[in-house]
Amino acid sequence: MSPETDFDGVPDGTPDRSTRGGPVAPSHSRLRPLGPDEIAIDGGFWGERQSLNADVILAHCETWMERIGWISNFDKVADGIIGGNHAGIEFVDSEIYKLLEAMAWELARRADASLEARYRALVARVAAAQDDDGYLNTSFGHPGQPLRYSNLEWGHELYCAGHLLQAAVARIRGGYPNDEIVRVARRAADHVYREFGPDGRIALCGHPEIEVALAEFSRATGEARYLDMAQLFVERRGNGMLATTILFGHEYFQDDMPVRDATVLRGHAVRALYLASGALDVATETHDRQLADAIALQWKNTVSRRTYITGGMGSHHQDEAFGDDYELPADRAYSETCAGIGSVMLSWRLLLETGESAYADLIERTLLNNILASPREDGRAFYYTNTLQQRTEGTEPSEEALSERAEASLRAPWFEVSCCPTNVARTLASVGLYFATADDHGVQLHQFGDYSVKTTLPDGRVVALHVESGYPFDGAVRVTVQSDVDATVTLRIPRWARGAATASIGGVHLAADGTELIVARQFTAGDCIELRLPMQPRIVHPHPRIDAARGTVAVERGPLVLVLESPDLPAGFSTETVEIDPDVPLVLTANGAQAAIRLRVDHSDALWPYAQSTRRQTDRDSSRLASAELTPYFAWANRGPSTMRVWLPLAPASGR
Amino acid sequence: MSPETDFDGVPDGTPDRSTRGGPVAPSHSRLRPLGPDEIAIDGGFWGERQSLNADVILAHCETWMERIGWISNFDKVADGIIGGNHAGIEFVDSEIYKLLEAMAWELARRADASLEARYRALVARVAAAQDDDGYLNTSFGHPGQPLRYSNLEWGHELYCAGHLLQAAVARIRGGYPNDEIVRVARRAADHVYREFGPDGRIALCGHPEIEVALAEFSRATGEARYLDMAQLFVERRGNGMLATTILFGHEYFQDDMPVRDATVLRGHAVRALYLASGALDVATETHDRQLADAIALQWKNTVSRRTYITGGMGSHHQDEAFGDDYELPADRAYSETCAGIGSVMLSWRLLLETGESAYADLIERTLLNNILASPREDGRAFYYTNTLQQRTEGTEPSEEALSERAEASLRAPWFEVSCCPTNVARTLASVGLYFATADDHGVQLHQFGDYSVKTTLPDGRVVALHVESGYPFDGAVRVTVQSDVDATVTLRIPRWARGAATASIGGVHLAADGTELIVARQFTAGDCIELRLPMQPRIVHPHPRIDAARGTVAVERGPLVLVLESPDLPAGFSTETVEIDPDVPLVLTANGAQAAIRLRVDHSDALWPYAQSTRRQTDRDSSRLASAELTPYFAWANRGPSTMRVWLPLAPASGR
Repeated sequence: MSPETDFDGVPDGTPDRSTRGGPVAPSHSRLRPLGPDEIAIDGGFWGERQSLNADVILAHCETWMERIGWISNFDKVADGIIGGNHAGIEFVDSEIYKLLEAMAWELARRADASLEARYRALVARVAAAQDDDGYLNTSFGHPGQPLRYSNLEWGHELYCAGHLLQAAVARIRGGYPNDEIVRVARRAADHVYREFGPDGRIALCGHPEIEVALAEFSRATGEARYLDMAQLFVERRGNGMLATTILFGHEYFQDDMPVRDATVLRGHAVRALYLASGALDVATETHDRQLADAIALQWKNTVSRRTYITGGMGSHHQDEAFGDDYELPADRAYSETCAGIGSVMLSWRLLLETGESAYADLIERTLLNNILASPREDGRAFYYTNTLQQRTEGTEPSEEALSERAEASLRAPWFEVSCCPTNVARTLASVGLYFATADDHGVQLHQFGDYSVKTTLPDGRVVALHVESGYPFDGAVRVTVQSDVDATVTLRIPRWARGAATASIGGVHLAADGTELIVARQFTAGDCIELRLPMQPRIVHPHPRIDAARGTVAVERGPLVLVLESPDLPAGFSTETVEIDPDVPLVLTANGAQAAIRLRVDHSDALWPYAQSTRRQTDRDSSRLASAELTPYFAWANRGPSTMRVWLPLAPASGR
Repeated sequence: MSPETDFDGVPDGTPDRSTRGGPVAPSHSRLRPLGPDEIAIDGGFWGERQSLNADVILAHCETWMERIGWISNFDKVADGIIGGNHAGIEFVDSEIYKLLEAMAWELARRADASLEARYRALVARVAAAQDDDGYLNTSFGHPGQPLRYSNLEWGHELYCAGHLLQAAVARIRGGYPNDEIVRVARRAADHVYREFGPDGRIALCGHPEIEVALAEFSRATGEARYLDMAQLFVERRGNGMLATTILFGHEYFQDDMPVRDATVLRGHAVRALYLASGALDVATETHDRQLADAIALQWKNTVSRRTYITGGMGSHHQDEAFGDDYELPADRAYSETCAGIGSVMLSWRLLLETGESAYADLIERTLLNNILASPREDGRAFYYTNTLQQRTEGTEPSEEALSERAEASLRAPWFEVSCCPTNVARTLASVGLYFATADDHGVQLHQFGDYSVKTTLPDGRVVALHVESGYPFDGAVRVTVQSDVDATVTLRIPRWARGAATASIGGVHLAADGTELIVARQFTAGDCIELRLPMQPRIVHPHPRIDAARGTVAVERGPLVLVLESPDLPAGFSTETVEIDPDVPLVLTANGAQAAIRLRVDHSDALWPYAQSTRRQTDRDSSRLASAELTPYFAWANRGPSTMRVWLPLAPASGR
């Protein structure tokens, strides 16, 4: 259990620029991702979120996991006293790894001696728990514990190993390829290869993650065996190898059919999205066109039929799973935060591979309307599930105790299964790396905010630019090119803005009616491209096959899904008895919109809620008209217990 | 483990009329229930179901439980070899008890030497497993097993004991008060009283059932201690005594607040309904008006806000629980069969207590549209959950293997948790006992079918009558009085028929515009009361707060909820893209209705299922009009894999 003798454990302190990069670095792709030395968020909306993450969320996660013993599980292993003394469920190791990944991305963004010290101390505790043969897990394999890999379906050992590798990838991409975590991860990956590789047992982990991690760790280290191992895990899945239980069939584990044969994501949503991400990485590196096409098809069918308007994925509470096509109930929307993160992981890979803006569209929607809904305004509590309708006010979870994961009423500080807070932390710390890419001709701006890009094209041209906007509240995006360069700057025109976006450079109109604004020219430092996206709130109708949303509309404003929340209702109104009058135009407000609403008179005292007459139940004459502020979904439930709805029933007034 | 010495184990073969009765026999109530010597189904719709139960379902249950070792668990206990050899989950004993209850009700209906022999043999095997102190459970308390009552939350020991007592009640009410099962149950009940009574431990079972069982067993045996024990269990609940888990809070167990303080049923639906039934029994026997009123209020609020149109209760898969008010999604309707049975248990008790026809209305709806949907036409497979929308055809469960309980696509022969088949069996065997009651003045007919009643009023008048009808398909109900008697005969006028029912006696019109048709007179043998209920199919709208059904309607015909099932669709139509045109009148057919439907053209290839325009998605000009047969919900899925929906989207044609 002691570190290998050739291990020095101390990075030299100077980032190695050659290894810097983003979370995903394919050996070849249509678009090239940027590293933390090429792109940085400067402030504004996203700057505030990154500061909150750095200042509050990282410490929140660390403090909680210290307090409840999840970190000291590693110490107990090192001390040989873990048997019978393990704190938390089987896979809490992964939370420490995700925190380490988050810290590594944060340190890649900016030097911070205090955070660096915390980071190294934590890595050292993890490293001390590694067995001599590279195995590293605090729940299995030590005296008084179940044997290693004795519960592949539910033990999450390879899942945890995957997150360890991802933490190491972040450190390498931050410029520390020889850091202690990287050595630890290498030994863990080698162990996995020995155990499960070509000469090892033919087996699978119940929760995909090792696939995407091994593929990326292979890219980051140049070690081909790790990719081979990832490929084996991807190919093995789908043959019913995992034992099922009374409630969870093969589909839950994506073990129902080979990855390359599936046409849609199914089963446990996070598992499905992590697996698809890893499978695409394998496909890319092995030039497996058939597999890559299968993943793209799965993405398309999932987005068009199994995705909430917030970008949230997964309808079921019981199995945290996708439902059938169009099974998207608002009031039991599961929409796990981690599934949103998995969706961004997958969409980002597809964007890099294809350059198609639809992937960036979904990333925008999911970041702003699903993932950002998770952390509370103060960064000290999180949603695990992200419902689209809250019918009752519920109660405030304890600030001191662990909460159930699906406690829907308010965000909770920490959970028994607490995958989401650390997942949010690593995503926020690296979020800027998903904003732009480069190719041979220039730079593509996929997301808007306040950030700077400076990158060198393959032929040596340097493109430097600054993006400035009041996004997501304001639709004016200004891109100032900061060098004299002949290059192409491409701005995504979001799907929701198509046909209503306008653009100019130096006051000269630019065509902005496609999926992208492409500006190719000899730029002079100071040239400013202006893209104006329409912020007028708009009514959005659900697909008619979404039974749960029939007869309702949502309101969007720019990239934001808005909601009606009880604190914004006039006295006497409730989110459960309100209808929107779509004949009264919506009015733009600072951060949301004002809508005309009607109070529906439900004779809810009737004994039986099904009747031959509708008049009995909705008395139009006595309905009241008022107006209410609709506010961004991501910001809901920051004012104490409340009720909320995304889908607003249409008042009969509309004649629709 | 041997029977007590004073136990003879052999009933004398002659039913004791003095103990005969129905499943519920309050010491006082507004209406008096009838026993198997007073009411009998003669044939027709319900006669067919009772024959199917007697001829197929009872043997199906017995054969399965023999085959998979659930019955021989008792033999293993008797032989001292159960440790490590128990078959099935912890509470499979209860399935044998429910089968015994079903057999006892069947034997109470009619003598059958072969069934009697099977019954006695099964009872003897159960009896042989009872410990000397009365404890009887095959999952706990023997060498190599967990200790007795070491897992009250999930072990179901008292739940199993409750079903043992109910089996004994059925035998007593069948006229065999000294039968072996009754002795076994007495010893078990005495054991429970010693362990948990005033001098025992203060504890609760995670699954209510012992309460209702003890109360009824007290009524059946005259032993007051059993009622005291039931009362203690009812009063203890609601104080957070049961340990909760990551997914199941106190509400799941109804341990969140005292029974008398609750205003609506909540948590696990079957648990809630069994508890409420037991609490009402306790309230009745202890003259606890406050508790009785609380249960009536809970029933009212549950029926008006938390009940499916089929009578099904419980929306959630994860915790098999009630959701929030009006949270009634069709496509994940859980509507467990056992919850429907629990609902009938509760409504029947409230009907006896109050005489109010609303309780009989719900019994009718639940029997015909929830409970009867469970057994397959051939009686060899069952639904555990009863969804209101099946989006995909799914696959046929194995006829040989155990199925998951919530496998929604088709009925399964047996389940890992197989509470529903035996619950259906005991309900069908006793169903006629819920059809009519008596009071000081005469007889009340609550349900319609083909059956005979002969009962003696307190003053010695004998009322004998025969009910004949083609119900539920035909609305003509004929009641022929078979004796010369001055009495009152009351027929429920179902809620759905109000205002459209007509009635006559000997060709003379009777007023039938209230909730009941009351005929009080000097009857002459042969007098025939005719009640005619309207069978014209009717459109039913959901309450506007049921978000999941907004913009849709259901079609009912008499007491039946109808569905659109894929085998009945014209070529090119699917249940997912169909709309009903409510401007075209529905046409009555033999067992259902014919409706005008439109094929909606969904541009479902669109990448994103949310759009600013609805025209894009529903192209009215190209929609096709056709007609389709709607058939009874209870009969669906008897023609192989199919899709189905209860709630039919309204075509825009209607101008609504």
